[in-house]
Amino acid sequence: MQNTFYKRRCRDNFISDFMLISGGNVRIGIIGIGAVGGYYGALLVKNGLDIHFLLNSDFEHVRDNGLLIESKDGDFVLEKVNAYFCSRDMPKCDVIIVALKTTHNDLLKSILPDVIKKNGIIVMLQNGLNIEKDISEIIPSATIIGGLCFLCSNKVGPGHIRHLDYGSIRLGEYKKNVFETGMSNELQLIADTFSNAGVPIHLAGNLGKARWEKLVWNMGFNGPTVILNATTDLIMKNESSCAMVKEIMLEVIQGARVCGYDITDDFSDIMLNATKQMVDYSPSMKLDYNAGRPLEIENIYWRPIREAEMQGYSMEKSTIIAYQLDFMDRANRKNI
Amino acid sequence: MQNTFYKRRCRDNFISDFMLISGGNVRIGIIGIGAVGGYYGALLVKNGLDIHFLLNSDFEHVRDNGLLIESKDGDFVLEKVNAYFCSRDMPKCDVIIVALKTTHNDLLKSILPDVIKKNGIIVMLQNGLNIEKDISEIIPSATIIGGLCFLCSNKVGPGHIRHLDYGSIRLGEYKKNVFETGMSNELQLIADTFSNAGVPIHLAGNLGKARWEKLVWNMGFNGPTVILNATTDLIMKNESSCAMVKEIMLEVIQGARVCGYDITDDFSDIMLNATKQMVDYSPSMKLDYNAGRPLEIENIYWRPIREAEMQGYSMEKSTIIAYQLDFMDRANRKNI
Repeated sequence: MQNTFYKRRCRDNFISDFMLISGGNVRIGIIGIGAVGGYYGALLVKNGLDIHFLLNSDFEHVRDNGLLIESKDGDFVLEKVNAYFCSRDMPKCDVIIVALKTTHNDLLKSILPDVIKKNGIIVMLQNGLNIEKDISEIIPSATIIGGLCFLCSNKVGPGHIRHLDYGSIRLGEYKKNVFETGMSNELQLIADTFSNAGVPIHLAGNLGKARWEKLVWNMGFNGPTVILNATTDLIMKNESSCAMVKEIMLEVIQGARVCGYDITDDFSDIMLNATKQMVDYSPSMKLDYNAGRPLEIENIYWRPIREAEMQGYSMEKSTIIAYQLDFMDRANRKNI
Repeated sequence: MQNTFYKRRCRDNFISDFMLISGGNVRIGIIGIGAVGGYYGALLVKNGLDIHFLLNSDFEHVRDNGLLIESKDGDFVLEKVNAYFCSRDMPKCDVIIVALKTTHNDLLKSILPDVIKKNGIIVMLQNGLNIEKDISEIIPSATIIGGLCFLCSNKVGPGHIRHLDYGSIRLGEYKKNVFETGMSNELQLIADTFSNAGVPIHLAGNLGKARWEKLVWNMGFNGPTVILNATTDLIMKNESSCAMVKEIMLEVIQGARVCGYDITDDFSDIMLNATKQMVDYSPSMKLDYNAGRPLEIENIYWRPIREAEMQGYSMEKSTIIAYQLDFMDRANRKNI
């Protein structure tokens, strides 16, 4: 099993390792302070790290009132956090954690050069495919790490995050040769950073494979919950929708295989059984739809579809889902 | 062009021909008095024919009040019609017109033997595939004719039909050898019956091909308007939904071809262009969904999908649509 559970290392080792590569105080910037960035960022602040948040709409509220985290693991308040509205006002950081929705990734071209130190580490806590490649073209000198969050949380108000369940992150390093495996010191150190703050960490030997594995679930459930206006529980309880999700998952697995990642068909059953055990759940795309936000159709559907197409495999079922989502997204936002 | 517009013949010829085969007065029974049976039945009554309606929920209202037709071609009222609640009370007929939704076709096994004369003619005004074959197994001695209605009408209340637009019927005869072509006297006479009542009639040389051609439009639009909660106009205006409908149509055309019916790909463009010219429209499945009635998923989607599957062709896009409809139908009717 490539996917080993990361063992938490003691805090002293972590700090000394990190200071070795950063040459002093480690400064971490977090871009985006929604359900993902707000939750993980708050855990890192609570763990005593030097965290700087770049915000947009909630800037004034967070600057004046800090962060409130309601969590199944215990609520807490951070009365004062470092908040910035403009990337040019933020100090350059050793590590940047990107926790924006991918629908805003076009902003990163102008933000990242302002906020990342030379040879820094960029951690992409996002869904989808190939986003690390985009970033490597913006900041070629950075080490880029992808993080797949298994987190159920919502932003319920400005600076107010509700963490419902789960919270682990699967981390893997972006390599130019996408089939290369192995762990760098940078990946180990990012794993330590989260792990010491109480976040369960899994390490993925190959990031591309990990992203396709996550897509099996995401493409199977994100679109259908929006289209059928249903939670995961309702979808699992109905024979037809359950069969549909399984067929989509098998198509995604085949897509992964034609792209060179060895995932076997039974991975779909593992995902479906895991979903049956889960609490009733609305995936991020469903929450975005309900809130009238743009949907991550491009990164969760179209990019994998195009990737497989380039290898001569047509993901016809996923294409139908993506077309439906395009329509619903526009109708939902009144053709904006 | 196989699909010739039927030229209306003069009324005297029609009556004498019909009386020749029926041996006297021609009696026509109509099963189902919704948007289709109510509209066409009323036109036949108005034309002086001996029409008998078998009804269910609206029986008492129609027996006491007759029928009210609001039509773009002129409103009219039939104060008195022959209405029956029970098939055993109805006189046996020379011609039976079935205008039920296919979701009620299981009732025909018990109804038809009560109401059709030996060697009578059964006209199936329904959507879907292979329904004539089902009927030939119930009444092997009957001549069975399929009718594809291009009609935009609603039942707006008991015995109250609103005819919005169109109204033509494409008629073809069921043959045991489904690839046989040709017109029988019975088909010509049914065409006369409708044509003399003012219904534009087209004759189809081959019923199977005609049914697949109608499925190109029905599978392309019926499901998507339900799933996307949209009219045909909205679907045509959005690039993604329009692309989706075209892909579904091309799949149906390929399904028809593997089943032996020669339909070319450009038929999808003909259908899409025709839809652009149409008034903004909710297909029957969307009206059924809005009214909380069961959807004709089995006959409009699953039967063609299985038919193509038997020839080794997997209609993957249509299968996704059918699964989604199964889910939505059950959710809409609260899992009934």
